[in-house]
Amino acid sequence: MRALVKERAGPGMTLCDVPVPAHGPHDALIKVHFAGVCGTDLHIWEWDRWASNRLKPPVVIGHEFSGEIVALGRDAEAAGLLAVGDLVTAEGHVVCGHCLQCRLGDGHLCRRTQIIGVDRDGAFAEYITMPASNVMRLDGIPQEVGAIMDPMGNAVHTVLEGEAVVGARVLVLGCGPIGCFAVGVARAAGASLVIASDFNERRLELAKAMGAHVTLNPGREDVVARVRELTGDGADLVCEFSGHPSGHQQAFAAARLGGRVNMLGTPSKSTEVDFARDVIFKGLTLYGVTGRRMYRTWDEMQRFLRSGQLDPRPVITHRFPMERMDEAIGVIKDGTAGKVILEIGA
Amino acid sequence: MRALVKERAGPGMTLCDVPVPAHGPHDALIKVHFAGVCGTDLHIWEWDRWASNRLKPPVVIGHEFSGEIVALGRDAEAAGLLAVGDLVTAEGHVVCGHCLQCRLGDGHLCRRTQIIGVDRDGAFAEYITMPASNVMRLDGIPQEVGAIMDPMGNAVHTVLEGEAVVGARVLVLGCGPIGCFAVGVARAAGASLVIASDFNERRLELAKAMGAHVTLNPGREDVVARVRELTGDGADLVCEFSGHPSGHQQAFAAARLGGRVNMLGTPSKSTEVDFARDVIFKGLTLYGVTGRRMYRTWDEMQRFLRSGQLDPRPVITHRFPMERMDEAIGVIKDGTAGKVILEIGA
Amino acid sequence: MRALVKERAGPGMTLCDVPVPAHGPHDALIKVHFAGVCGTDLHIWEWDRWASNRLKPPVVIGHEFSGEIVALGRDAEAAGLLAVGDLVTAEGHVVCGHCLQCRLGDGHLCRRTQIIGVDRDGAFAEYITMPASNVMRLDGIPQEVGAIMDPMGNAVHTVLEGEAVVGARVLVLGCGPIGCFAVGVARAAGASLVIASDFNERRLELAKAMGAHVTLNPGREDVVARVRELTGDGADLVCEFSGHPSGHQQAFAAARLGGRVNMLGTPSKSTEVDFARDVIFKGLTLYGVTGRRMYRTWDEMQRFLRSGQLDPRPVITHRFPMERMDEAIGVIKDGTAGKVILEIGA
Amino acid sequence: MRALVKERAGPGMTLCDVPVPAHGPHDALIKVHFAGVCGTDLHIWEWDRWASNRLKPPVVIGHEFSGEIVALGRDAEAAGLLAVGDLVTAEGHVVCGHCLQCRLGDGHLCRRTQIIGVDRDGAFAEYITMPASNVMRLDGIPQEVGAIMDPMGNAVHTVLEGEAVVGARVLVLGCGPIGCFAVGVARAAGASLVIASDFNERRLELAKAMGAHVTLNPGREDVVARVRELTGDGADLVCEFSGHPSGHQQAFAAARLGGRVNMLGTPSKSTEVDFARDVIFKGLTLYGVTGRRMYRTWDEMQRFLRSGQLDPRPVITHRFPMERMDEAIGVIKDGTAGKVILEIGA
Repeated sequence: MRALVKERAGPGMTLCDVPVPAHGPHDALIKVHFAGVCGTDLHIWEWDRWASNRLKPPVVIGHEFSGEIVALGRDAEAAGLLAVGDLVTAEGHVVCGHCLQCRLGDGHLCRRTQIIGVDRDGAFAEYITMPASNVMRLDGIPQEVGAIMDPMGNAVHTVLEGEAVVGARVLVLGCGPIGCFAVGVARAAGASLVIASDFNERRLELAKAMGAHVTLNPGREDVVARVRELTGDGADLVCEFSGHPSGHQQAFAAARLGGRVNMLGTPSKSTEVDFARDVIFKGLTLYGVTGRRMYRTWDEMQRFLRSGQLDPRPVITHRFPMERMDEAIGVIKDGTAGKVILEIGA
Repeated sequence: MRALVKERAGPGMTLCDVPVPAHGPHDALIKVHFAGVCGTDLHIWEWDRWASNRLKPPVVIGHEFSGEIVALGRDAEAAGLLAVGDLVTAEGHVVCGHCLQCRLGDGHLCRRTQIIGVDRDGAFAEYITMPASNVMRLDGIPQEVGAIMDPMGNAVHTVLEGEAVVGARVLVLGCGPIGCFAVGVARAAGASLVIASDFNERRLELAKAMGAHVTLNPGREDVVARVRELTGDGADLVCEFSGHPSGHQQAFAAARLGGRVNMLGTPSKSTEVDFARDVIFKGLTLYGVTGRRMYRTWDEMQRFLRSGQLDPRPVITHRFPMERMDEAIGVIKDGTAGKVILEIGA
Repeated sequence: MRALVKERAGPGMTLCDVPVPAHGPHDALIKVHFAGVCGTDLHIWEWDRWASNRLKPPVVIGHEFSGEIVALGRDAEAAGLLAVGDLVTAEGHVVCGHCLQCRLGDGHLCRRTQIIGVDRDGAFAEYITMPASNVMRLDGIPQEVGAIMDPMGNAVHTVLEGEAVVGARVLVLGCGPIGCFAVGVARAAGASLVIASDFNERRLELAKAMGAHVTLNPGREDVVARVRELTGDGADLVCEFSGHPSGHQQAFAAARLGGRVNMLGTPSKSTEVDFARDVIFKGLTLYGVTGRRMYRTWDEMQRFLRSGQLDPRPVITHRFPMERMDEAIGVIKDGTAGKVILEIGA
Repeated sequence: MRALVKERAGPGMTLCDVPVPAHGPHDALIKVHFAGVCGTDLHIWEWDRWASNRLKPPVVIGHEFSGEIVALGRDAEAAGLLAVGDLVTAEGHVVCGHCLQCRLGDGHLCRRTQIIGVDRDGAFAEYITMPASNVMRLDGIPQEVGAIMDPMGNAVHTVLEGEAVVGARVLVLGCGPIGCFAVGVARAAGASLVIASDFNERRLELAKAMGAHVTLNPGREDVVARVRELTGDGADLVCEFSGHPSGHQQAFAAARLGGRVNMLGTPSKSTEVDFARDVIFKGLTLYGVTGRRMYRTWDEMQRFLRSGQLDPRPVITHRFPMERMDEAIGVIKDGTAGKVILEIGA
C-alpha cells in the first residue's frame, strides 16, 4: 500500500510502498478514507528537537483519520461491537490499561502511551491497524468530520474540564484549528459569551464562523483590557492554545478571581509567573490538557456532533491527496490554513 | 484599653491606650484572651513593601484570636445564635456578601475584603468588635487552639481542596506553622503517606510531632528523588508553603502525572515555569489558596478539632504578653519558633 | 397600600388596604411592578393541609416579583451595591446565615428559612421590604421576566445539579411552568436531546415552544419505551416535576444506568420504590431539589437571560390585575394556564 | 482439580473434580489460595429466585479470592505488569470495555458484565483463569486480606462516593461483613464520628473492633433519635447495608438536611418513600452502589491496606476447607459469622 513515511532522521516525508499492516486478535484493520494534518506533523516534517528525540524511523506518519473496517481480529469480532463495513474513527493514543493513571480513569496520562504516527505506524496510509477498543463508529457523523475528531477532542477536553462552562464567559487564546473548534464547543456547551483572540485575521474569521461573539487581535487591541470591559470581572474560563509566554500571562490576567485556565498550547520556552499576584491571590485553578479523556471526551464530542450542536466543517480550508503533502505542510506553515485534510481512499 | 498599634508609617508597633471599639447592631464585642502572631505581622512590623502599600496607620494589628463575647448588637442578639459569655474565635476576613465571588460561595476571594489587623482594627488588643456572622463558638475547643484557627484554616483549605486527599501520598513543602498544621490535617483526612520538607531541623521536628511519616531536608537530600522513591509515581497532592521558586519547581516535579499542587506560600519574586514539561504533559492541576472557604473550611476544622483527630498544640512553641511583642517578632524572625501566641486577657 | 391578604384561616384571599411595610437598616423597600402566581398560591388560596399547618394569618401572599427600589436602609445604602431607582427582583427565602447548611453553602436548606408570602408578608402588594442581600438588580432583564425568576430558578437548580447536562439527553416529566422553564434551561445548557412529557396538550405546546425536541403524552404513549427508543440507553438526566408516584416510577425506569434523577415536584402521597431494581443495580443518583442555590443559581440564570440563551416569555399566558386574583387562580386550577402574572404597579 | 460446583438447578453445591481452566492470550491462570464466602453464595446455595433466574449450571461458584499466578497468556506476559509467581487478587466483574458506561468510567455498571462464580466459572476451585486486566498484585497485602478485597471494595465504594466523608458523621446501617468493613474505611478516610447499627450483638462487637465510636441496637434503641442526639443535626452520610425497608426509612430520617445516603444492601421487597418529606424538602442525595469502581476503588483500598490505615482481619471469624462448605454456609445463615474464608491451596 501507499503511505507517507519518515524514512530516516531528517526533514521531509516520503510517499512509499509498504506492506499492509498485520492485525492481531483484538485489532481492527481499517481502510483510511480521510486523514487530518496536524501541527505535530509539521514538527515531524521539519524534524525539530522534539521530533528527533521522539521518533524512531522508519515510521508511517499521521494520527487523525476516518475510514472503514475491512477486517477484524477474532476477539474483536467476538466482542460484537464492531463489524466489517463500519465507518469509524479512532483514539490515536494506545495506552497500557494497567498503570495508576489508567486505573484511575486518567488513561490520557498513561506513561506507556504509544501514539500512532509517532511511536507506531500511523494513518497517512491506505490501511491502518488499531486495537478495537480504540475504534469508534461514526454512526452518521460525516467522514471528513470523523477524520478530525482527534484535535476536536483536544478542544472538548480543554473546554469541558472543570465546572465553569455552562453560562460562562470563555476566552479562547489562539485560533488555530483546535482554538476554532474550542469556540464551537464552548457555544454548544452553553457558554454565554465566547471571546477569541489571535494575531491572524484569517483565523479570527474562522473563529467567528464557529460562533465567537467577539474576536480580538492582540496586535491592535489590549486583550486583557477588552476582556475585562466585556465581562466586568474577567473570564470564568480561559482556554490557552497559543503556547506563548505572552498568552499565558494574558490568560492569568484575563481570568476572573476564582476562575480557571485550561492550557493546551505547548510552549517551546518557559514562562515567568508571578504566582502571588496571578494565581494565589486570585484563587485561580490551572490545568494542563493532554490528549482526550478516554473515553468521556469522545462521548461528549459524539453527542455534540450527532445532535448538530457542533459542526466543525467551517474550519476545514484545504484538501490534498497524499502526493501533495508538501503543499499541505506549506499552507499550515504559512498560516493560510485552518484545518487541512488528506483525501486518501474515500 | 491596651492595644498594639501601628501608629505611623515605619517599622515597629506601639503598645497604646485606645478606646474600646463601638459595636453596631449586627456586631459582637469580644474580650480577647489569646492571639496568634503571624508572618504577616512580621511584614507589618518590618514595614516592607507590601505593608507600606496596604496599611493606613493608625491601625490595631492582629488577625488571629480567641476570646469571650461581652456584648452583642441588637440584631446579632435577636439572631439567637450567639450569647454574651460565649467563648469564640472569628474569621478575620470581613467580606461584602454581594459580589460575584461572594454569591458563588467564593467569599474568600471577595474584592472588597477588609482584613482585621490590616484594613481595620485587629486583635492585639483587650477588645475587638466583629460582625456576628464572622464569629464562631469554640464549644469545647481549647482557647489557645481557637486563637490559631485562622492559620490552621489556611492549612485545611490547602489540604482539602480538590479530590486528592483520602489515601493520598501528600508532600508538604515548607514547615512553618501552616505547613505543620497541614501535616496534621492530611493525617486527619486519611492521607496514606505524609512527607514534609524544610531546611530547618527544628521545624522538621514539629512536622514529625504533627504526624509526618517522613521528613526531608533539601539542604541534605534530593527532595524530588526521595519523593519518587517513596511513592513510586510521585505525590498525589503537593501543598506548597515555602513561597520560593525552588519550592514551586520541586512541587511540579514531585507531583505525579495527573496530580495536584495547591499553593499557599506567597513568593516575593516570580518563578520560571516550563509549562509544557511540568504542567501540560503531566496533566497537573495547580490551585492558588487564599484565606479559608467561608465557611466550609471552618466547619471541617471544627470537626477535626472536636473529634480529637487534629491537635495543633505541639506547634505552639512560645507565649508572650503584649508587652514583649518584640521578643515574639524575634523568635519568628530567627526561625526558632513554631507558632507564637500572645496571652492578652485570659 | 393595596395587598392580597390571607386574613384568616380558610379559603380565598382578600384585597385589603394595609400599611406600607417598615424597612430596617439592612433592607430595601421595593415598589412591586409584576408578581408571578405559583401553585403554592393555589394551595394557600384553597387552604389545604399544608397551608393550614404553615401559615399564620393575617399575611400578605406572593413570593415571585419584580419592582423598583424606592428606599434603602442606612447599611444597605452604605454597601453601595443597590440604589434607589434600581429595577430588581429578589430571592424569597430569607435565611439565617449561621446554621450548618448556611455555612456550607446550602442556604436553600436552612432550617430557619422565612419565605415571603408564606412566613412573612409577601409580594402581592404595592410595596414589599426585603433584606438587601436577597435583592438582585435586573440590569436589562425585562421586568415581567424578573417577576418569574423564582420558579425559573427552581428549574435552573433542577437541571444544573450534578454533572450530567452538557450534551445530555434530558427527560422533563411534568410541563407546568417550572417544567417548561426546565426545557429552556436544558437547551441553553447544551443538552443534546430534550424530551418533555405531560398529559396536557396545551402544556406540551409550551414545552415545544421552549425548545423540547420531542414531546410525549403518557395518556397516549409509553413514555419509558419511547425514551429508550430515542436514547438507546435511557436518559442521562431526568427532571421530575410531576410530583406523582407514577412520574417517579417513570423517572427511575427511564434513566440510564449511572444516570441521575433530580426531583422537585412535591408529591402528596408516598411512592413504592423497588430500590434493588431501580436504584442500586442501576447505580442511579437521586437528588431532592428545594428552592434555589443561594446564589449560584441566580448567577447562572442571570447569565442565561442576559445572553439571550433563555427566554421564558412563551410560558407566560395570562396577566391580571390584583382585583382579578380569583380568575388567576381559576386558570391555574383548570390547567389552561402556563405562567400567570399579576400586573401590580408597572 | 477440585472445585465447588453448582451442578444442577436446586439447593446445595458439590465438591467435584473438574478440568483446570484453559487460559487465553490476555489471561492469567491463578492457583487459588484463599477465597471469601459471600451472602451471594448463600443465595446460590439455597437456590432462591434470584439465583435460579441468573445461574446456568454447571458453574464453579466463588467470586472473592487471592492466589498465585502460575501461567500467563502471551499478550498478558508481553504487557509486563504481571509475572508468574505474583501473589494477586482480582476484580470479579469482567466487563465489555465498549459500552457507554465502560467508556464513561462506570464499568461497574456495564450491561454485559460477567461475574465469576455466577455467570462464568469462579474461585472455589484450585485454579481460576482471569483476564489480566482484572488482576491486581497484592504487593505485601496479606493473602487472606486479598481474598476479601471484593466485599471490602463494596464498602470502600459505599463510603467514598460523594464528597461527604472527611470529618463527616457517618451512620452505618447493617453490620454484616461489608458494614463492618465500611466502619473501618470511614475511620481510615477521616470521618469524625462513626455510628454503627445492627440487631445482632455479635456484629456490633465486630463493628466496635473495626473502630465504630458508637454502636446502636434498633431492637433496644431508637436509632434515628440517637443519631440526632449524637450529631445535633443528623448524619452527613448514611451507608445503608441492611437492605430492609425499615433501614431505608431510618437512613432518610437520620441523614441531615443536605446529607447523603449511599445504598448497597439489596432489598427483596419495595419501600414506601415519602419523597416530599424525606428527600425533596431535605435536599438529600441518594446513590445506588453496585460493585466497585474499576479501578479507582481498588486503588483507594490498596492504599488504605498497605499504609495500615485499614485492617479488616478482625472481621474474619471462620475458616474452612472446601470440604466443609456446608458449615461455612451454616455460620453465615445463623448469623454467628463475620467474614468466612475457605482455605483452598495455601
